[in-house]
Amino acid sequence: MAEVRLGIIGLGNVGSGTLSILAENGAQIAEKLGFPLRVVAVCARQLSNKKIPDGLQGALQTTDWREVVNHPEVDVVAELVGGTTVAREIVETALENGKSVVTANKELMALCGPELWDKAIQKGVNLAMEASVAGGIPIHTVLREGISGDRIVALLGILNGTSNYILTEVEKSGAAFGDVLAEAQKLGYAEADPTADVDGFDARSKLAILSALAFGQKIRAGDIFTQGIRRITPIDFQYAHTLKHTIRLVCAARQTAEGLILSVRPALIPQSTILAGVQGAYNAIWVRGKYGQDTFYYGRGAGPEPTGVAVVSDLMRVAREIRSGSPERVSPFAHEQLAEFRPVSVLVQKRAYYLRFRVHDRPGIIAALAGILAEKNISLDAVLQLPGDNKTSLPFVITVEPSTENAVQDAVEAMNRLDFMAEPALALPMETSL
Amino acid sequence: MAEVRLGIIGLGNVGSGTLSILAENGAQIAEKLGFPLRVVAVCARQLSNKKIPDGLQGALQTTDWREVVNHPEVDVVAELVGGTTVAREIVETALENGKSVVTANKELMALCGPELWDKAIQKGVNLAMEASVAGGIPIHTVLREGISGDRIVALLGILNGTSNYILTEVEKSGAAFGDVLAEAQKLGYAEADPTADVDGFDARSKLAILSALAFGQKIRAGDIFTQGIRRITPIDFQYAHTLKHTIRLVCAARQTAEGLILSVRPALIPQSTILAGVQGAYNAIWVRGKYGQDTFYYGRGAGPEPTGVAVVSDLMRVAREIRSGSPERVSPFAHEQLAEFRPVSVLVQKRAYYLRFRVHDRPGIIAALAGILAEKNISLDAVLQLPGDNKTSLPFVITVEPSTENAVQDAVEAMNRLDFMAEPALALPMETSL
Repeated sequence: MAEVRLGIIGLGNVGSGTLSILAENGAQIAEKLGFPLRVVAVCARQLSNKKIPDGLQGALQTTDWREVVNHPEVDVVAELVGGTTVAREIVETALENGKSVVTANKELMALCGPELWDKAIQKGVNLAMEASVAGGIPIHTVLREGISGDRIVALLGILNGTSNYILTEVEKSGAAFGDVLAEAQKLGYAEADPTADVDGFDARSKLAILSALAFGQKIRAGDIFTQGIRRITPIDFQYAHTLKHTIRLVCAARQTAEGLILSVRPALIPQSTILAGVQGAYNAIWVRGKYGQDTFYYGRGAGPEPTGVAVVSDLMRVAREIRSGSPERVSPFAHEQLAEFRPVSVLVQKRAYYLRFRVHDRPGIIAALAGILAEKNISLDAVLQLPGDNKTSLPFVITVEPSTENAVQDAVEAMNRLDFMAEPALALPMETSL
Repeated sequence: MAEVRLGIIGLGNVGSGTLSILAENGAQIAEKLGFPLRVVAVCARQLSNKKIPDGLQGALQTTDWREVVNHPEVDVVAELVGGTTVAREIVETALENGKSVVTANKELMALCGPELWDKAIQKGVNLAMEASVAGGIPIHTVLREGISGDRIVALLGILNGTSNYILTEVEKSGAAFGDVLAEAQKLGYAEADPTADVDGFDARSKLAILSALAFGQKIRAGDIFTQGIRRITPIDFQYAHTLKHTIRLVCAARQTAEGLILSVRPALIPQSTILAGVQGAYNAIWVRGKYGQDTFYYGRGAGPEPTGVAVVSDLMRVAREIRSGSPERVSPFAHEQLAEFRPVSVLVQKRAYYLRFRVHDRPGIIAALAGILAEKNISLDAVLQLPGDNKTSLPFVITVEPSTENAVQDAVEAMNRLDFMAEPALALPMETSL
């Protein structure tokens, strides 16, 4: 049976994982499809240090991506270089040339995915991006097809493996954030510049893509409220555990009466929920549908082969559609058209909050803080103080009943002006509605 | 834009869930697809007691399924009656008439799915069955497309909500199996005849379908080793917890050097694994791929609306393919052709085992049992006895290191012949490799 022919651009982690799966698993892939996939061209900036697997060595090997996207035999291009400059040119030229594209590029799809999809429709080809978010978890397929009949009400994800690794290490070892980060950097789990991971920017791009799929809106990463994990200390885990919760960097998208509210921020989640069990570098997504209720998806967030599986699975789907001669494709965003997104501030959301203070100990502190909460009409739920003797920077926690973030932020600002505060209060939402 | 027209046969739980989603969520479905779905015919054995949702009342309402499968306007038939007699005739006639079929029928697909798929190919139409296993979890989509590029090594599932509900109730309350079952029957969670659920037959049909998808083989339910949960007692949970495990009815499919080994049986699973957190009537599937490593999927196993989401999502996919005029469909079994399955006995599998005894207490018991294990070359791992004083039926547990089930069964048979045994030993595998 006639094969479908592939051009692979980029032989970094994901590219090399993709190539080795295509080589090793080629026979089973052909059995599943009823026809084989053949790699006819590969491109890397430097080829000398790249290992092309046995069986694929007949392919054109080039350092010029244009040779791949212009190759007359290539039916599908896999763009695995990353970034938003050359990658954009690669994808645009491939689509322009009537070739379908599979990409693992979250930044590019978060930046201009809808425009690229418009071009794909116009050219009658396909564009797929399973590998762009949560590499090993087939969450795009799930949202695009598996539960497409549902109406999604909320989506909560742990989408950044590095920050989840750091948080679970702080939780387990009780070591300080900075020490765990330094160790993670030494082990290669965190980048020399950890900003994208620990300040939530990587997770934010991923949430932008997943919420577009789940809610059918054009969401820009910059529209998402984002807070990193640098202020989380071992003491916060101790208090969270006392409250039968844990702390994770939660990517949340919720349909509310006010509209779709999006945030990436550390939050308390109940230990009894399945999301709380996500340890180390794993990713997970919890989805609540109006009809299907709760579903949960879990797997490796990254890594050459888990992400390679996502690329190869997309290549198989796109190849099947090419073989069927189908002129109509499934949108990578699960919706034929994305609506404009009107950002809604997190300030209108109503949740329970965890407020952690460090104070210079003296009488009257609780009275002062409780007075401010009362003034803002916020009901205090619990006051917790674990044993400790640091009188100049004494930590303790107040939890409050569901209140608007607006009121809570107002209260926190007023509290931060009190002269006994050793540092600004840390306010984290409690995701008790999971 | 031109609509795709549906005929719905069967208005029981799943049928009514499907209809209400199609009615309530119709606008969003049309936005996602770019065209609407329209219900043109519905069929139930009795219509008088059925509520047809607003907006669908213009559809033909009939008690004769032939009017639906012969309806000239119907493009896709949803077979939601269940069973394997009328349902089979419905599906065959619909395919024969050139209509695509979406089914929620696990028995039918386990019985003759490959033959029905052959007929669908021959007629150039589609056949889809997301709703047939683990209603609310889109596991078919995941195996068929989401991770199709992977090579699956093992699949472990909790696929029967009733037995999981009973086990987790026994675990939580410490009540006896029979009492929990009676309570579950009173509450409507278990059938008057609970055999299909508690003896593993329902789970077995589901495992047959999922392993066909995962491993590309024609698996008959009758080829699967099946053991129910009736012998599990509260004391087993006490011992399992002491070993930091819990007990679940585990549907397992593993690629081994000897071939594919399939079983449905109660097993010990480590409390630290994500599968152990599956409580109550939820279903879950844990998949290990050679490349993608571990992924995990969790959701409602049944219920009108969760299963309805699966039916509607399949209808959307099939409708999209009809609209695209695509002549080539994705096999509902994820493989263009299924290979013949050569059953491999569970006796060759090597695992750690949990052996629970009840004995008439007297000196020399451990020596006698340990002697038998030594004779069969089985290494004893631990001997556990929780405090208790029932000298005529004293429970205690021996765990053994990984050994073939063959050797363990031989040993258990020899042990059961010893005169101090108050009941036959209970042997459960320990799924420590999760």
